[in-house]
Amino acid sequence: MTYTLVLLRHGESDWNAKNLFTGWVDVPLTEKGQGEAKRGGEQLVEAGILPDVVHTSLLRRAITTAGLALDAADRHWIPVKRSWRLNERHYGALQGKDKKQTLEQYGEEQFMLWRRSFDVPPPPIELDDEFSQASDVRYADLGPDLPATECLKDVIARMVPYWESDIVPDLAAGKTVLVAAHGNSLRAIVKHLDGISDEDIAGLNIPTGMPLVYELDDAFSPVEKGGRYLDPDAAAAAAAAVANQGK
Amino acid sequence: MTYTLVLLRHGESDWNAKNLFTGWVDVPLTEKGQGEAKRGGEQLVEAGILPDVVHTSLLRRAITTAGLALDAADRHWIPVKRSWRLNERHYGALQGKDKKQTLEQYGEEQFMLWRRSFDVPPPPIELDDEFSQASDVRYADLGPDLPATECLKDVIARMVPYWESDIVPDLAAGKTVLVAAHGNSLRAIVKHLDGISDEDIAGLNIPTGMPLVYELDDAFSPVEKGGRYLDPDAAAAAAAAVANQGK
Repeated sequence: MTYTLVLLRHGESDWNAKNLFTGWVDVPLTEKGQGEAKRGGEQLVEAGILPDVVHTSLLRRAITTAGLALDAADRHWIPVKRSWRLNERHYGALQGKDKKQTLEQYGEEQFMLWRRSFDVPPPPIELDDEFSQASDVRYADLGPDLPATECLKDVIARMVPYWESDIVPDLAAGKTVLVAAHGNSLRAIVKHLDGISDEDIAGLNIPTGMPLVYELDDAFSPVEKGGRYLDPDAAAAAAAAVANQGK
Repeated sequence: MTYTLVLLRHGESDWNAKNLFTGWVDVPLTEKGQGEAKRGGEQLVEAGILPDVVHTSLLRRAITTAGLALDAADRHWIPVKRSWRLNERHYGALQGKDKKQTLEQYGEEQFMLWRRSFDVPPPPIELDDEFSQASDVRYADLGPDLPATECLKDVIARMVPYWESDIVPDLAAGKTVLVAAHGNSLRAIVKHLDGISDEDIAGLNIPTGMPLVYELDDAFSPVEKGGRYLDPDAAAAAAAAVANQGK
Protein backbone atom coordinates (compact mmCIF):
# COMPACT_ATOMS: atom_id res chain seq x y z
CA MET A 1 0.00 0.00 0.00
CA THR A 2 1.45 3.35 -1.03
CA TYR A 3 0.06 6.85 -0.92
CA THR A 4 -0.04 9.14 -3.94
CA LEU A 5 0.89 12.81 -3.79
CA VAL A 6 0.87 15.12 -6.82
CA LEU A 7 2.67 18.46 -6.72
CA LEU A 8 1.74 21.07 -9.30
CA ARG A 9 3.40 24.46 -9.65
CA HIS A 10 1.07 27.10 -11.06
CA GLY A 11 1.30 27.97 -14.76
CA GLU A 12 3.06 31.10 -15.98
CA SER A 13 1.81 34.24 -14.24
CA ASP A 14 1.79 37.84 -15.43
CA TRP A 15 4.87 38.51 -13.39
CA ASN A 16 6.70 35.34 -14.45
CA ALA A 17 6.25 36.71 -17.96
CA LYS A 18 7.44 40.18 -16.91
CA ASN A 19 10.35 38.68 -14.92
CA LEU A 20 9.38 40.41 -11.66
CA PHE A 21 9.77 39.03 -8.13
CA THR A 22 6.23 38.08 -7.13
CA GLY A 23 6.15 36.36 -3.73
CA TRP A 24 2.83 37.10 -2.04
CA VAL A 25 1.67 39.62 -4.65
CA ASP A 26 -1.53 38.11 -6.06
CA VAL A 27 -1.10 38.23 -9.84
CA PRO A 28 -3.16 36.26 -12.37
CA LEU A 29 -2.03 33.60 -14.83
CA THR A 30 -1.17 34.58 -18.38
CA GLU A 31 -3.03 32.88 -21.23
CA LYS A 32 0.03 30.64 -21.63
CA GLY A 33 -0.19 29.81 -17.92
CA GLN A 34 -3.85 28.86 -18.27
CA GLY A 35 -2.89 26.51 -21.09
CA GLU A 36 -0.14 24.97 -18.96
CA ALA A 37 -2.62 24.34 -16.16
CA LYS A 38 -5.04 22.59 -18.51
CA ARG A 39 -2.27 20.45 -19.96
CA GLY A 40 -1.24 19.53 -16.42
CA GLY A 41 -4.74 18.19 -15.87
CA GLU A 42 -4.66 16.31 -19.16
CA GLN A 43 -1.38 14.67 -18.14
CA LEU A 44 -3.05 13.44 -14.96
CA VAL A 45 -5.86 11.86 -16.99
CA GLU A 46 -3.39 10.21 -19.39
CA ALA A 47 -1.49 8.77 -16.41
CA GLY A 48 -4.71 7.64 -14.72
CA ILE A 49 -3.87 9.67 -11.61
CA LEU A 50 -7.06 11.23 -10.33
CA PRO A 51 -6.88 13.52 -7.28
CA ASP A 52 -9.44 12.98 -4.51
CA VAL A 53 -8.71 16.25 -2.75
CA VAL A 54 -6.79 19.42 -3.60
CA HIS A 55 -4.81 21.77 -1.39
CA THR A 56 -3.93 25.25 -2.65
CA SER A 57 -2.32 28.43 -1.39
CA LEU A 58 -4.36 31.63 -1.00
CA LEU A 59 -2.95 33.07 -4.23
CA ARG A 60 -4.99 33.16 -7.44
CA ARG A 61 -2.24 31.81 -9.66
CA ALA A 62 -2.32 28.53 -7.70
CA ILE A 63 -6.11 28.57 -7.22
CA THR A 64 -6.78 29.14 -10.93
CA THR A 65 -4.21 26.51 -11.88
CA ALA A 66 -5.91 23.96 -9.62
CA GLY A 67 -9.32 24.85 -11.05
CA LEU A 68 -8.24 24.58 -14.69
CA ALA A 69 -6.21 21.39 -14.19
CA LEU A 70 -8.99 19.67 -12.25
CA ASP A 71 -11.62 20.75 -14.76
CA ALA A 72 -9.50 19.29 -17.57
CA ALA A 73 -9.19 16.07 -15.53
CA ASP A 74 -12.96 16.02 -14.81
CA ARG A 75 -12.14 16.27 -11.08
CA HIS A 76 -13.35 19.85 -10.55
CA TRP A 77 -15.88 18.55 -7.97
CA ILE A 78 -13.39 17.20 -5.39
CA PRO A 79 -13.00 18.83 -1.96
CA VAL A 80 -10.76 21.91 -1.76
CA LYS A 81 -8.60 23.16 1.10
CA ARG A 82 -6.60 26.36 1.09
CA SER A 83 -3.89 27.71 3.35
CA TRP A 84 -1.49 30.64 3.45
CA ARG A 85 1.07 28.03 4.56
CA LEU A 86 1.27 26.90 0.91
CA ASN A 87 1.89 30.44 -0.35
CA GLU A 88 4.99 31.29 -2.34
CA ARG A 89 7.99 32.48 -0.37
CA HIS A 90 7.50 36.09 0.69
CA TYR A 91 10.13 37.99 -1.26
CA GLY A 92 10.31 40.93 1.13
CA ALA A 93 11.44 44.23 -0.34
CA LEU A 94 12.13 42.51 -3.67
CA GLN A 95 8.38 42.03 -4.34
CA GLY A 96 7.49 43.94 -7.49
CA LYS A 97 11.15 44.42 -8.50
CA ASP A 98 12.51 43.42 -11.91
CA LYS A 99 14.74 40.35 -11.67
CA LYS A 100 17.18 41.42 -14.37
CA GLN A 101 17.45 44.93 -12.95
CA THR A 102 17.99 43.55 -9.45
CA LEU A 103 20.72 41.27 -10.80
CA GLU A 104 22.48 44.22 -12.46
CA GLN A 105 22.05 46.48 -9.45
CA TYR A 106 23.25 44.09 -6.75
CA GLY A 107 25.45 41.70 -8.73
CA GLU A 108 25.17 37.96 -9.21
CA GLU A 109 26.40 36.96 -5.78
CA GLN A 110 23.85 38.98 -3.82
CA PHE A 111 21.13 38.12 -6.36
CA MET A 112 21.70 34.37 -6.09
CA LEU A 113 21.94 34.65 -2.31
CA TRP A 114 18.47 36.19 -2.19
CA ARG A 115 17.07 33.74 -4.70
CA ARG A 116 18.60 30.53 -3.49
CA SER A 117 20.20 30.92 -0.08
CA PHE A 118 18.57 28.59 2.40
CA ASP A 119 18.57 30.95 5.36
CA VAL A 120 19.23 34.51 4.19
CA PRO A 121 15.98 36.39 3.48
CA PRO A 122 15.85 39.57 1.38
CA PRO A 123 15.34 42.83 3.30
CA PRO A 124 11.82 43.02 4.80
CA ILE A 125 9.13 44.89 2.90
CA GLU A 126 7.88 48.15 4.40
CA LEU A 127 4.34 48.03 5.85
CA ASP A 128 3.23 50.81 3.51
CA ASP A 129 4.87 49.40 0.40
CA GLU A 130 2.34 48.98 -2.42
CA PHE A 131 3.31 45.30 -2.60
CA SER A 132 3.04 44.61 1.17
CA GLN A 133 0.27 42.31 2.47
CA ALA A 134 0.13 44.05 5.86
CA SER A 135 -3.48 45.17 5.30
CA ASP A 136 -4.67 42.25 3.18
CA VAL A 137 -7.82 40.93 4.86
CA ARG A 138 -7.10 37.32 3.93
CA TYR A 139 -4.12 37.34 6.29
CA ALA A 140 -5.81 39.27 9.09
CA ASP A 141 -5.83 36.22 11.36
CA LEU A 142 -2.07 35.70 11.11
CA GLY A 143 -1.19 38.59 13.40
CA PRO A 144 2.54 38.57 14.12
CA ASP A 145 2.96 35.41 11.97
CA LEU A 146 2.50 37.53 8.81
CA PRO A 147 5.93 37.56 7.19
CA ALA A 148 7.59 40.71 5.85
CA THR A 149 10.21 38.56 4.11
CA GLU A 150 11.16 34.90 4.04
CA CYS A 151 14.02 32.59 3.17
CA LEU A 152 13.37 28.98 2.20
CA LYS A 153 14.02 27.91 5.78
CA ASP A 154 11.14 30.15 6.88
CA VAL A 155 8.87 28.64 4.22
CA ILE A 156 9.65 25.14 5.48
CA ALA A 157 8.95 26.22 9.07
CA ARG A 158 5.44 27.45 8.21
CA MET A 159 4.69 24.76 5.61
CA VAL A 160 5.53 21.65 7.67
CA PRO A 161 2.78 22.19 10.30
CA TYR A 162 0.21 22.20 7.46
CA TRP A 163 1.79 19.15 5.90
CA GLU A 164 1.36 17.33 9.20
CA SER A 165 -2.07 18.67 10.15
CA ASP A 166 -3.88 18.63 6.80
CA ILE A 167 -2.03 16.85 4.00
CA VAL A 168 -0.79 13.73 5.82
CA PRO A 169 -4.27 12.93 7.20
CA ASP A 170 -5.71 13.07 3.66
CA LEU A 171 -2.95 10.77 2.43
CA ALA A 172 -3.45 8.45 5.39
CA ALA A 173 -7.15 8.20 4.46
CA GLY A 174 -6.02 6.73 1.13
CA LYS A 175 -6.76 9.85 -0.90
CA THR A 176 -4.74 10.89 -3.92
CA VAL A 177 -3.70 14.40 -2.89
CA LEU A 178 -3.02 17.27 -5.29
CA VAL A 179 -1.05 20.24 -3.95
CA ALA A 180 -1.29 23.22 -6.30
CA ALA A 181 1.21 25.77 -5.13
CA HIS A 182 4.43 27.65 -5.90
CA GLY A 183 8.08 27.23 -6.79
CA ASN A 184 9.31 27.66 -3.23
CA SER A 185 6.48 26.14 -1.20
CA LEU A 186 6.81 23.04 -3.41
CA ARG A 187 10.61 23.07 -3.03
CA ALA A 188 9.94 23.12 0.72
CA ILE A 189 7.77 20.00 0.44
CA VAL A 190 10.29 18.24 -1.81
CA LYS A 191 13.18 19.06 0.56
CA HIS A 192 11.12 17.77 3.48
CA LEU A 193 10.14 14.57 1.64
CA ASP A 194 13.43 13.74 -0.03
CA GLY A 195 15.63 14.83 2.87
CA ILE A 196 17.63 17.15 0.62
CA SER A 197 20.41 19.04 2.39
CA ASP A 198 20.30 22.79 2.99
CA GLU A 199 23.05 23.16 0.37
CA ASP A 200 21.69 20.87 -2.33
CA ILE A 201 18.19 22.35 -2.33
CA ALA A 202 19.64 25.47 -4.03
CA GLY A 203 20.04 23.46 -7.23
CA LEU A 204 16.47 22.14 -7.32
CA ASN A 205 14.04 23.91 -9.63
CA ILE A 206 10.41 22.99 -10.24
CA PRO A 207 8.87 23.79 -13.62
CA THR A 208 5.41 25.36 -14.02
CA GLY A 209 2.33 23.31 -14.85
CA MET A 210 3.94 19.86 -14.77
CA PRO A 211 2.56 17.30 -12.31
CA LEU A 212 5.30 15.80 -10.10
CA VAL A 213 4.08 12.51 -8.65
CA TYR A 214 5.35 10.91 -5.43
CA GLU A 215 4.44 7.48 -4.19
CA LEU A 216 4.88 7.51 -0.41
CA ASP A 217 5.37 4.59 1.96
CA ASP A 218 3.71 3.98 5.33
CA ALA A 219 5.98 6.58 6.93
CA PHE A 220 5.02 9.07 4.18
CA SER A 221 8.54 8.88 2.77
CA PRO A 222 9.08 8.68 -0.99
CA VAL A 223 9.35 5.17 -2.42
CA GLU A 224 11.54 6.75 -5.08
CA LYS A 225 13.46 9.91 -4.20
CA GLY A 226 12.64 12.89 -6.38
CA GLY A 227 9.31 11.45 -7.51
CA ARG A 228 8.57 11.42 -11.21
CA TYR A 229 7.34 13.97 -13.71
CA LEU A 230 4.66 12.67 -16.02
CA ASP A 231 6.57 14.24 -18.91
CA PRO A 232 10.22 13.99 -17.75
CA ASP A 233 11.88 15.51 -20.84
CA ALA A 234 9.68 18.59 -20.86
CA ALA A 235 10.13 18.97 -17.11
CA ALA A 236 13.94 18.85 -17.35
CA ALA A 237 13.99 21.49 -20.06
CA ALA A 238 11.60 23.73 -18.14
CA ALA A 239 13.52 23.36 -14.85
CA ALA A 240 16.69 24.47 -16.62
CA ALA A 241 14.85 27.55 -17.86
CA VAL A 242 13.75 28.39 -14.29
CA ALA A 243 17.35 28.11 -13.12
CA ASN A 244 18.40 30.69 -15.73
CA GLN A 245 15.80 33.31 -14.80
CA GLY A 246 17.17 36.80 -14.54
CA LYS A 247 20.15 36.01 -16.77
CA MET B 1 -27.51 41.39 14.07
CA THR B 2 -28.49 39.87 10.75
CA TYR B 3 -26.86 37.20 8.64
CA THR B 4 -26.05 37.65 4.97
CA LEU B 5 -26.72 35.00 2.34
CA VAL B 6 -25.97 35.46 -1.36
CA LEU B 7 -27.51 33.13 -3.94
CA LEU B 8 -25.93 32.99 -7.38
CA ARG B 9 -27.25 30.93 -10.27
CA HIS B 10 -24.51 29.84 -12.68
CA GLY B 11 -24.00 31.81 -15.88
CA GLU B 12 -25.27 30.57 -19.24
CA SER B 13 -24.13 27.01 -19.98
CA ASP B 14 -23.63 25.27 -23.29
CA TRP B 15 -26.98 23.59 -22.92
CA ASN B 16 -28.81 26.73 -21.78
CA ALA B 17 -27.62 28.18 -25.09
CA LYS B 18 -28.71 25.06 -27.00
CA ASN B 19 -32.04 24.95 -25.11
CA LEU B 20 -31.54 21.37 -23.86
CA PHE B 21 -32.68 19.94 -20.52
CA THR B 22 -29.47 19.66 -18.50
CA GLY B 23 -30.14 18.51 -14.95
CA TRP B 24 -27.13 16.57 -13.67
CA VAL B 25 -25.32 16.49 -17.04
CA ASP B 26 -22.05 18.31 -16.39
CA VAL B 27 -21.79 20.88 -19.17
CA PRO B 28 -19.44 23.90 -19.19
CA LEU B 29 -20.29 27.59 -19.25
CA THR B 30 -20.43 29.44 -22.55
CA GLU B 31 -18.22 32.48 -23.01
CA LYS B 32 -21.32 34.59 -22.30
CA GLY B 33 -21.83 32.58 -19.10
CA GLN B 34 -18.24 33.23 -18.02
CA GLY B 35 -18.85 36.95 -18.52
CA GLU B 36 -22.06 36.77 -16.46
CA ALA B 37 -20.16 35.08 -13.63
CA LYS B 38 -17.49 37.79 -13.62
CA ARG B 39 -20.11 40.54 -13.62
CA GLY B 40 -21.84 38.80 -10.72
CA GLY B 41 -18.61 39.13 -8.76
CA GLU B 42 -18.22 42.77 -9.76
CA GLN B 43 -21.75 43.48 -8.52
CA LEU B 44 -20.77 42.02 -5.14
CA VAL B 45 -17.78 44.36 -4.93
CA GLU B 46 -19.89 47.38 -5.91
CA ALA B 47 -22.39 46.47 -3.19
CA GLY B 48 -19.63 45.88 -0.65
CA ILE B 49 -20.87 42.33 -0.03
CA LEU B 50 -17.84 40.09 0.34
CA PRO B 51 -18.40 36.34 0.84
CA ASP B 52 -16.44 34.61 3.61
CA VAL B 53 -17.24 31.09 2.43
CA VAL B 54 -18.73 29.57 -0.73
CA HIS B 55 -20.91 26.50 -1.19
CA THR B 56 -21.28 24.95 -4.64
CA SER B 57 -22.86 21.93 -6.27
CA LEU B 58 -20.68 19.21 -7.84
CA LEU B 59 -21.35 20.53 -11.35
CA ARG B 60 -18.79 22.56 -13.26
CA ARG B 61 -21.17 25.29 -14.38
CA ALA B 62 -21.70 26.25 -10.72
CA ILE B 63 -18.07 25.59 -9.73
CA THR B 64 -16.69 27.71 -12.57
CA THR B 65 -19.23 30.46 -11.88
CA ALA B 66 -18.17 30.56 -8.23
CA GLY B 67 -14.50 30.68 -9.22
CA LEU B 68 -14.91 33.47 -11.75
CA ALA B 69 -17.24 35.56 -9.56
CA LEU B 70 -14.99 35.24 -6.52
CA ASP B 71 -11.87 36.01 -8.54
CA ALA B 72 -13.56 39.16 -9.85
CA ALA B 73 -14.47 40.07 -6.26
CA ASP B 74 -10.90 39.33 -5.03
CA ARG B 75 -12.36 36.62 -2.76
CA HIS B 76 -11.00 33.59 -4.65
CA TRP B 77 -9.10 32.56 -1.51
CA ILE B 78 -12.09 31.91 0.77
CA PRO B 79 -12.97 28.38 1.97
CA VAL B 80 -14.99 26.22 -0.45
CA LYS B 81 -17.52 23.49 0.28
CA ARG B 82 -19.25 21.35 -2.33
CA SER B 83 -22.23 19.02 -2.19
CA TRP B 84 -24.38 17.05 -4.59
CA ARG B 85 -27.28 18.34 -2.47
CA LEU B 86 -26.89 21.70 -4.24
CA ASN B 87 -27.01 20.10 -7.71
CA GLU B 88 -29.62 21.10 -10.24
CA ARG B 89 -32.84 19.10 -10.24
CA HIS B 90 -32.29 15.74 -11.92
CA TYR B 91 -34.37 15.93 -15.07
CA GLY B 92 -34.75 12.16 -15.50
CA ALA B 93 -35.33 10.92 -19.02
CA LEU B 94 -35.53 14.52 -20.26
CA GLN B 95 -31.77 15.07 -19.72
CA GLY B 96 -30.18 15.81 -23.07
CA LYS B 97 -33.55 16.45 -24.75
CA ASP B 98 -34.34 19.62 -26.69
CA LYS B 99 -36.80 21.81 -24.80
CA LYS B 100 -38.63 23.12 -27.86
CA GLN B 101 -38.88 19.63 -29.36
CA THR B 102 -40.15 18.23 -26.06
CA LEU B 103 -42.76 20.99 -25.92
CA GLU B 104 -43.95 20.18 -29.43
CA GLN B 105 -43.91 16.43 -28.84
CA TYR B 106 -45.77 16.36 -25.52
CA GLY B 107 -47.76 19.59 -25.62
CA GLU B 108 -47.67 22.59 -23.32
CA GLU B 109 -49.59 21.02 -20.44
CA GLN B 110 -47.27 18.03 -20.01
CA PHE B 111 -44.22 20.20 -20.70
CA MET B 112 -45.11 22.73 -18.02
CA LEU B 113 -46.02 19.92 -15.61
CA TRP B 114 -42.52 18.48 -15.96
CA ARG B 115 -40.86 21.88 -15.77
CA ARG B 116 -42.81 23.46 -12.95
CA SER B 117 -44.97 20.91 -11.15
CA PHE B 118 -44.01 20.74 -7.50
CA ASP B 119 -44.34 17.01 -7.09
CA VAL B 120 -44.51 15.30 -10.50
CA PRO B 121 -41.07 14.22 -11.72
CA PRO B 122 -40.31 13.38 -15.38
CA PRO B 123 -39.92 9.68 -16.21
CA PRO B 124 -36.73 8.25 -14.67
CA ILE B 125 -33.60 8.05 -16.80
CA GLU B 126 -32.39 4.56 -17.79
CA LEU B 127 -29.21 3.38 -16.06
CA ASP B 128 -27.48 2.93 -19.42
CA ASP B 129 -28.65 6.24 -20.90
CA GLU B 130 -25.67 8.30 -22.10
CA PHE B 131 -26.88 11.12 -19.85
CA SER B 132 -27.33 8.99 -16.71
CA GLN B 133 -25.03 9.52 -13.71
CA ALA B 134 -25.37 5.90 -12.53
CA SER B 135 -21.66 5.21 -13.04
CA ASP B 136 -20.34 8.71 -12.27
CA VAL B 137 -17.64 8.25 -9.61
CA ARG B 138 -18.45 11.53 -7.88
CA TYR B 139 -21.80 10.08 -6.79
CA ALA B 140 -20.49 6.63 -5.88
CA ASP B 141 -21.13 7.22 -2.17
CA LEU B 142 -24.81 8.05 -2.66
CA GLY B 143 -25.87 4.45 -3.24
CA PRO B 144 -29.67 4.26 -3.40
CA ASP B 145 -29.93 8.03 -2.79
CA LEU B 146 -28.73 8.68 -6.35
CA PRO B 147 -31.80 10.05 -8.13
CA ALA B 148 -32.94 8.85 -11.56
CA THR B 149 -35.36 11.79 -11.75
CA GLU B 150 -36.56 14.53 -9.42
CA CYS B 151 -39.36 17.01 -8.96
CA LEU B 152 -38.84 20.22 -6.98
CA LYS B 153 -40.21 18.53 -3.87
CA ASP B 154 -37.40 15.96 -4.14
CA VAL B 155 -34.82 18.72 -4.52
CA ILE B 156 -36.06 20.40 -1.36
CA ALA B 157 -35.95 17.08 0.51
CA ARG B 158 -32.27 16.55 -0.31
CA MET B 159 -31.25 20.23 -0.13
CA VAL B 160 -32.67 21.06 3.33
CA PRO B 161 -30.42 18.64 5.28
CA TYR B 162 -27.38 20.41 3.77
CA TRP B 163 -28.89 23.81 4.52
CA GLU B 164 -29.20 22.78 8.16
CA SER B 165 -25.90 20.90 8.51
CA ASP B 166 -23.53 23.12 6.52
CA ILE B 167 -24.97 26.48 5.49
CA VAL B 168 -26.75 27.54 8.69
CA PRO B 169 -23.64 26.88 10.85
CA ASP B 170 -21.57 29.13 8.54
CA LEU B 171 -24.24 31.85 8.78
CA ALA B 172 -24.44 31.40 12.55
CA ALA B 173 -20.68 31.95 12.72
CA GLY B 174 -21.30 35.40 11.25
CA LYS B 175 -19.97 34.54 7.82
CA THR B 176 -21.32 36.04 4.62
CA VAL B 177 -22.25 32.89 2.70
CA LEU B 178 -22.29 32.56 -1.09
CA VAL B 179 -24.23 29.65 -2.58
CA ALA B 180 -23.34 29.13 -6.25
CA ALA B 181 -25.84 26.67 -7.66
CA HIS B 182 -28.70 26.12 -10.08
CA GLY B 183 -32.16 27.31 -11.06
CA ASN B 184 -33.97 24.63 -9.10
CA SER B 185 -31.67 24.09 -6.13
CA LEU B 186 -31.83 27.86 -5.57
CA ARG B 187 -35.62 27.86 -6.01
CA ALA B 188 -35.63 25.17 -3.33
CA ILE B 189 -33.69 27.44 -0.95
CA VAL B 190 -35.88 30.44 -1.75
CA LYS B 191 -39.07 28.43 -1.20
CA HIS B 192 -37.70 27.17 2.11
CA LEU B 193 -36.64 30.65 3.23
CA ASP B 194 -39.64 32.67 2.05
CA GLY B 195 -42.24 30.03 2.91
CA ILE B 196 -43.61 30.09 -0.64
CA SER B 197 -46.53 27.71 -1.22
CA ASP B 198 -46.24 24.61 -3.39
CA GLU B 199 -48.42 26.37 -5.97
CA ASP B 200 -46.77 29.79 -6.00
CA ILE B 201 -43.23 28.45 -6.41
CA ALA B 202 -44.11 27.50 -10.01
CA GLY B 203 -44.08 31.20 -10.92
CA LEU B 204 -40.67 31.93 -9.41
CA ASN B 205 -37.71 32.08 -11.80
CA ILE B 206 -34.12 32.90 -10.93
CA PRO B 207 -31.93 34.58 -13.56
CA THR B 208 -28.36 33.47 -14.31
CA GLY B 209 -25.34 35.28 -12.91
CA MET B 210 -27.18 37.81 -10.74
CA PRO B 211 -26.47 37.83 -7.01
CA LEU B 212 -29.66 37.58 -4.91
CA VAL B 213 -28.98 38.83 -1.40
CA TYR B 214 -30.92 37.84 1.72
CA GLU B 215 -30.53 39.36 5.13
CA LEU B 216 -31.64 36.74 7.66
CA ASP B 217 -32.76 37.22 11.26
CA ASP B 218 -31.80 35.20 14.32
CA ALA B 219 -34.11 32.37 13.23
CA PHE B 220 -32.49 32.43 9.75
CA SER B 221 -35.70 33.83 8.26
CA PRO B 222 -35.56 36.64 5.68
CA VAL B 223 -35.82 40.14 7.08
CA GLU B 224 -37.37 41.03 3.73
CA LYS B 225 -39.18 38.29 1.80
CA GLY B 226 -37.74 37.63 -1.64
CA GLY B 227 -34.39 39.19 -0.81
CA ARG B 228 -32.99 41.72 -3.24
CA TYR B 229 -31.14 41.55 -6.52
CA LEU B 230 -28.19 43.89 -6.72
CA ASP B 231 -29.41 44.92 -10.18
CA PRO B 232 -33.21 44.56 -9.87
CA ASP B 233 -34.16 45.73 -13.37
CA ALA B 234 -31.78 43.38 -15.15
CA ALA B 235 -32.88 40.54 -12.87
CA ALA B 236 -36.57 41.08 -13.64
CA ALA B 237 -35.94 41.09 -17.38
CA ALA B 238 -33.77 37.97 -17.17
CA ALA B 239 -36.29 36.09 -14.98
CA ALA B 240 -38.99 36.77 -17.57
CA ALA B 241 -36.74 35.29 -20.24
CA VAL B 242 -36.24 32.12 -18.14
CA ALA B 243 -40.01 31.77 -17.79
CA ASN B 244 -40.37 31.80 -21.57
CA GLN B 245 -37.80 29.08 -22.28
CA GLY B 246 -38.91 26.49 -24.78
CA LYS B 247 -41.51 28.82 -26.29
